[in-house]
Amino acid sequence: MVSGTKIESGGGPIRYGMVGGGQGAFIGGVHRIAARIDGEFVLVAGALSSSPERAKASGAELGLDPERNYGSFQEMAKAEARRPDGIEAVAIVTPNHMHYPAAKAFLEAGIHVICDKPLTSTLADAKKLAALVEKSGKVFVLTHNYTGYPMIRQAREMIQKGQLGDIRVVQAEYPQDWLTEKAEDTGSKQAAWRVDPKQSGVGGSTGDIGTHAYNLARFVTGLELDSLSADLDAFVKGRLLDDNAHVMLRFKGGAKGMIWASQVAPGNENGLKLRVYGTKGGIEWVQADPNYLWFTPFGEPKRLITRGGAGAGPAAARVSRVPPGHPEGYLEGFATIYAEAARAIRAARKKNGKPAKDVVYPTVQDGVEGVAFVEACVKSSKKNAAWTKL
Amino acid sequence: MVSGTKIESGGGPIRYGMVGGGQGAFIGGVHRIAARIDGEFVLVAGALSSSPERAKASGAELGLDPERNYGSFQEMAKAEARRPDGIEAVAIVTPNHMHYPAAKAFLEAGIHVICDKPLTSTLADAKKLAALVEKSGKVFVLTHNYTGYPMIRQAREMIQKGQLGDIRVVQAEYPQDWLTEKAEDTGSKQAAWRVDPKQSGVGGSTGDIGTHAYNLARFVTGLELDSLSADLDAFVKGRLLDDNAHVMLRFKGGAKGMIWASQVAPGNENGLKLRVYGTKGGIEWVQADPNYLWFTPFGEPKRLITRGGAGAGPAAARVSRVPPGHPEGYLEGFATIYAEAARAIRAARKKNGKPAKDVVYPTVQDGVEGVAFVEACVKSSKKNAAWTKL
Amino acid sequence: MVSGTKIESGGGPIRYGMVGGGQGAFIGGVHRIAARIDGEFVLVAGALSSSPERAKASGAELGLDPERNYGSFQEMAKAEARRPDGIEAVAIVTPNHMHYPAAKAFLEAGIHVICDKPLTSTLADAKKLAALVEKSGKVFVLTHNYTGYPMIRQAREMIQKGQLGDIRVVQAEYPQDWLTEKAEDTGSKQAAWRVDPKQSGVGGSTGDIGTHAYNLARFVTGLELDSLSADLDAFVKGRLLDDNAHVMLRFKGGAKGMIWASQVAPGNENGLKLRVYGTKGGIEWVQADPNYLWFTPFGEPKRLITRGGAGAGPAAARVSRVPPGHPEGYLEGFATIYAEAARAIRAARKKNGKPAKDVVYPTVQDGVEGVAFVEACVKSSKKNAAWTKL
Amino acid sequence: MVSGTKIESGGGPIRYGMVGGGQGAFIGGVHRIAARIDGEFVLVAGALSSSPERAKASGAELGLDPERNYGSFQEMAKAEARRPDGIEAVAIVTPNHMHYPAAKAFLEAGIHVICDKPLTSTLADAKKLAALVEKSGKVFVLTHNYTGYPMIRQAREMIQKGQLGDIRVVQAEYPQDWLTEKAEDTGSKQAAWRVDPKQSGVGGSTGDIGTHAYNLARFVTGLELDSLSADLDAFVKGRLLDDNAHVMLRFKGGAKGMIWASQVAPGNENGLKLRVYGTKGGIEWVQADPNYLWFTPFGEPKRLITRGGAGAGPAAARVSRVPPGHPEGYLEGFATIYAEAARAIRAARKKNGKPAKDVVYPTVQDGVEGVAFVEACVKSSKKNAAWTKL
Repeated sequence: MVSGTKIESGGGPIRYGMVGGGQGAFIGGVHRIAARIDGEFVLVAGALSSSPERAKASGAELGLDPERNYGSFQEMAKAEARRPDGIEAVAIVTPNHMHYPAAKAFLEAGIHVICDKPLTSTLADAKKLAALVEKSGKVFVLTHNYTGYPMIRQAREMIQKGQLGDIRVVQAEYPQDWLTEKAEDTGSKQAAWRVDPKQSGVGGSTGDIGTHAYNLARFVTGLELDSLSADLDAFVKGRLLDDNAHVMLRFKGGAKGMIWASQVAPGNENGLKLRVYGTKGGIEWVQADPNYLWFTPFGEPKRLITRGGAGAGPAAARVSRVPPGHPEGYLEGFATIYAEAARAIRAARKKNGKPAKDVVYPTVQDGVEGVAFVEACVKSSKKNAAWTKL
Repeated sequence: MVSGTKIESGGGPIRYGMVGGGQGAFIGGVHRIAARIDGEFVLVAGALSSSPERAKASGAELGLDPERNYGSFQEMAKAEARRPDGIEAVAIVTPNHMHYPAAKAFLEAGIHVICDKPLTSTLADAKKLAALVEKSGKVFVLTHNYTGYPMIRQAREMIQKGQLGDIRVVQAEYPQDWLTEKAEDTGSKQAAWRVDPKQSGVGGSTGDIGTHAYNLARFVTGLELDSLSADLDAFVKGRLLDDNAHVMLRFKGGAKGMIWASQVAPGNENGLKLRVYGTKGGIEWVQADPNYLWFTPFGEPKRLITRGGAGAGPAAARVSRVPPGHPEGYLEGFATIYAEAARAIRAARKKNGKPAKDVVYPTVQDGVEGVAFVEACVKSSKKNAAWTKL
Repeated sequence: MVSGTKIESGGGPIRYGMVGGGQGAFIGGVHRIAARIDGEFVLVAGALSSSPERAKASGAELGLDPERNYGSFQEMAKAEARRPDGIEAVAIVTPNHMHYPAAKAFLEAGIHVICDKPLTSTLADAKKLAALVEKSGKVFVLTHNYTGYPMIRQAREMIQKGQLGDIRVVQAEYPQDWLTEKAEDTGSKQAAWRVDPKQSGVGGSTGDIGTHAYNLARFVTGLELDSLSADLDAFVKGRLLDDNAHVMLRFKGGAKGMIWASQVAPGNENGLKLRVYGTKGGIEWVQADPNYLWFTPFGEPKRLITRGGAGAGPAAARVSRVPPGHPEGYLEGFATIYAEAARAIRAARKKNGKPAKDVVYPTVQDGVEGVAFVEACVKSSKKNAAWTKL
Repeated sequence: MVSGTKIESGGGPIRYGMVGGGQGAFIGGVHRIAARIDGEFVLVAGALSSSPERAKASGAELGLDPERNYGSFQEMAKAEARRPDGIEAVAIVTPNHMHYPAAKAFLEAGIHVICDKPLTSTLADAKKLAALVEKSGKVFVLTHNYTGYPMIRQAREMIQKGQLGDIRVVQAEYPQDWLTEKAEDTGSKQAAWRVDPKQSGVGGSTGDIGTHAYNLARFVTGLELDSLSADLDAFVKGRLLDDNAHVMLRFKGGAKGMIWASQVAPGNENGLKLRVYGTKGGIEWVQADPNYLWFTPFGEPKRLITRGGAGAGPAAARVSRVPPGHPEGYLEGFATIYAEAARAIRAARKKNGKPAKDVVYPTVQDGVEGVAFVEACVKSSKKNAAWTKL
């Protein structure tokens, strides 16, 4: 039924290490599952916390070889670079402000990097990191995981093939509710660092989820931004970073868009939704029900394309694992980013090797643009929503 | 099960006439059904077209008494005012630019007015009309029909009772697709007048549907607007009025909102949707499935309240006609506006009579505000989306 | 957009009377709204209750002429038959056991009959009534109202045109929850007569809602029943009639089906649903969201056909009143039965007049089959679900 | 947010082998992903096909050690039993008729078994296998994978806690469409063995998917079956096994149920759905959208419980991996069966070790009952749907 990702590879899996993701963290565990799903990666080293004690305790829990269970990422980068069986790649899953120094250390040690988003906590860091990546020649994969969903690949392919005609309107939103009250004051570690400018950067909801919405719109439509107008709020008293963002977009070529990101919208868990309308048709996709894509060609009945079902094309099929009607979810989409990373890293094992043309993942340039988006939102909002370029 | 609207009244029905709504028109037929549903009105006169011939042919088709089948509204206003069995009310269902002169004629003739939206094609006319209404002491009902849906009444009641806490965010949208291509050039009379500034006024999608979204947001939340920032487009070449509108809202007191109105979004028929979020919970309502209201109290499971079902209160019950699970639709919601109008008109039959406190309908003031909204959108958009007050 | 039902007719409306439907009743009010929606009927007489006092009080409330506000249907049939302006049609909306004597009285008086379902409380009565209808030559319309929904007409048309191929499987269900507890003991008049064999006949859920599901399956597919196997329960202690029915169907020609009817399924309001599958495709329709029809041609993407939208054909269009995206509901579907009745009655005004070929409504024969269905269910269930013919 | 499955265990992973699941197979790949997701298993041996050549080629592709890449399961059982680092568990993913001999070989070799469903192709084999399991004292896990979905665990917990009251009605269905046409004649290996009585046993749709529906109903409600009445069809000409099944259920204690299983219902991919109604409330769950559970307490608004969201209890939380709003799917549910197997196997590593009380998985007894269900359906259908006990 589904050709899908080749599930296991004949060659050996990729040895990787992890920075961050120890006890009490959330996204590290997600990365580890994602890395395991297709059997392409094996975790052999870690510096799992900024606290050496917690790092070691976390690594022991995961069964890491004590020798490769490091107290700091600096130590890990050095030691692994020296080992003949050292890691080929590192996954960086720390709060935002640590992405840059950690990525720098591993790139300079000749190790490929898989990095959580947003890329960095400042645009300056982001640009420096992009330069480092280029200089290093290493693979750099940013885990804008929603780009791994099969029906997102499907939507992108349909737009590339012209099935929507010229794009006119993009509506993206990412509402959540978990910061409706002041969770950062009641012991949520997840909340605490996300609302702290020192760890997150200048964006709150814009950085945490707005970037996802923006990245997804860009990934699916291929449109480039001209400028944006943003009206940000921190509705919860005493919160320093935005928890609700209203953004109007003007794309080059005349298309228009809106983004709504919120962490204070009760009843929304991870309500990421993308709608795109062109001269010939529209598409609609909702993250919480990711196996469906509405396709609405103008003047014809609405069609519901299902992952793996009739009407789904090769771009979706190559990242699917199970037949239609058996839902794939968040972890599988995340795993697809890892699978694409694996293809890129395997290609890099060979001299002048390049991944196949259909291998697609978010790059450091996407990351720079994401941070630029956040900073532009903040800048615009401070100027009474003045139109601002990235 | 449902107490509901008292379906038939013991007293005699209200005699009414209609201006516009003849052959080839759409909304006139809707008004006539709406007027019939609860048995409160009887159509006895008409000036059904601006063309006297078409007016008379249309009236004959409806079985109007030839004597009361008029060639113009001026004639009708005069003649009916003189009759002992003359109309008590008139329904005005012409293109926008005729609302003002027609309403003026009937108000001055001492006849109550039920008028389609938007109120007028210019803000100047709107304000003059409001003054006339006040002076006349007559009932004036604007058919912002979506305010007649039971679950909209329910949402409003819940917000008034504080069940959402302090409102922070309002998301309203009204996408359609019928003007994706240039329907005005292919013989659609409905399209032709709506894109003609002389008949519609300065707003296209803003006036036709944006006002509905704005009015609904205001009706449900009770929030007052401080200012708006609008980015309007006419995506179809040669179209003079906007067919897509992106609007950011700032309400007095600090709440924020967004409105998206579009006539070029393929796959959307009448996609009016309202979402409101407060400190304690949220609500979500979709016009195409109007018998449902999502209520999402923060930290509790989501609840789907159905029209007439458990959890629905008196404000919804008084405008419901059938038990839960049997869907009511657009015509019933429209009929509720007529039912409220009937209550107001019956009250006005008595000296110093006033309708009961729970009788609610859109007024001429709502109409003035709607036209002000359209003009503010256009003004803001011309100034590069500058923040603009109504 | 939508051609639709011609909303008002040039000729005069049909004068009708009503039997039953007085104070405290539910379905009578529905009939009256349905009769008004298209302006084809005017209520001029009534015998609105089996209690003469309540009948007269109810008629006064509705503003009936005191002379035509009768204390019994017998009196009304006689008196109206004698009047030059007597009623042309009567609507019978009493409990089931009164359908037969009332219909008999009016047919014998030369008056057309619109009758609520099920046709009668016994099969013997049903057959006698069918004979009377034939002998009388009068129009007899049974209000299996769900057949009036546009998308049901659409489904029927698609099956007639062969778009589903040969039908193999029919799944129909009608779950409700209002009799989960013993509502008949707590003052619900609606519940009381429905669970009383003297007023309802031998079927409880089978008669009240199972017949709807069965009728709808028959109407849409055109399949004829060979035999059924039924397992009925009265789950609520002391209840005499079934409140839950499981039925397997064998159609002539080899298709199979299932019906589930229940009044004890919490969370279901009026959950009527029909699914039909053939060699070439399937359809799915849900009463609570009646403006949508899923069409699933085998091997193609699923299509959601909307009332009035692309892909909807003439059978749906002729019974639609408003454009797509503006939902029509239960009352409009019900009104379509009245509109079809009006067409049949208008045709009957002329000597040898016949309604147009596309006029479709449930007949007395459908009513006989419905009662036969109920009796066969009860008979089968008593014989341990033995296969039983109608 | 979510406590969830402890993702990685401190101890070493469980070494396992696989029988079946080589090139061209489907479910083997699913098992391998499921085994990897929580990091509890490592694949070290295989006899991946009944053809030795294909077996070895498949194992090579998966990177198996050539020494442990066996040509037959018999050979594998013997060899692994002798190795000090031999497998602790085997996953059997062959066509049904091979489950029994393969399971027998490994149980007799002292190796735990994880086996695909249905348990065997005959009831006789099933009973023999159950006896073997008991004698062996080994862990035996049947992959009725749908029991691994968090919201299924949630539903089961709610019923156990009495939140639905006494269960009255169970509605289970599993429609598919992939055998609408004669796929077995057009090269689908998946179709070919499933419609072959020698490989599948006496049941077609009953065995492949009906057992899932039955098992799920039993798992969630805890009700025991008294008897069933089944009407089976093979709609596609020349097909030997049923492709559509209508089944009525009578449970001990008086509850009733229906099961519909079909492979010829166009538009249905894997439409497994379960609805349960009791005296106090109902639940509804759909496999294609598995992160939602409707809970409908009688007389209260409907509630939508989301995986990990408010209202979800510990039984769901312990098998969840990511926060609410990030969908988990089929593979995660499948992985939960493997996670439960791992807990049971880890417990069995210790003398007299027992898994914690909340470890739940389908057992060999469930498998015996499943095969009995299939045989009872076939037997009943042959006797004109006579009531039949398991």
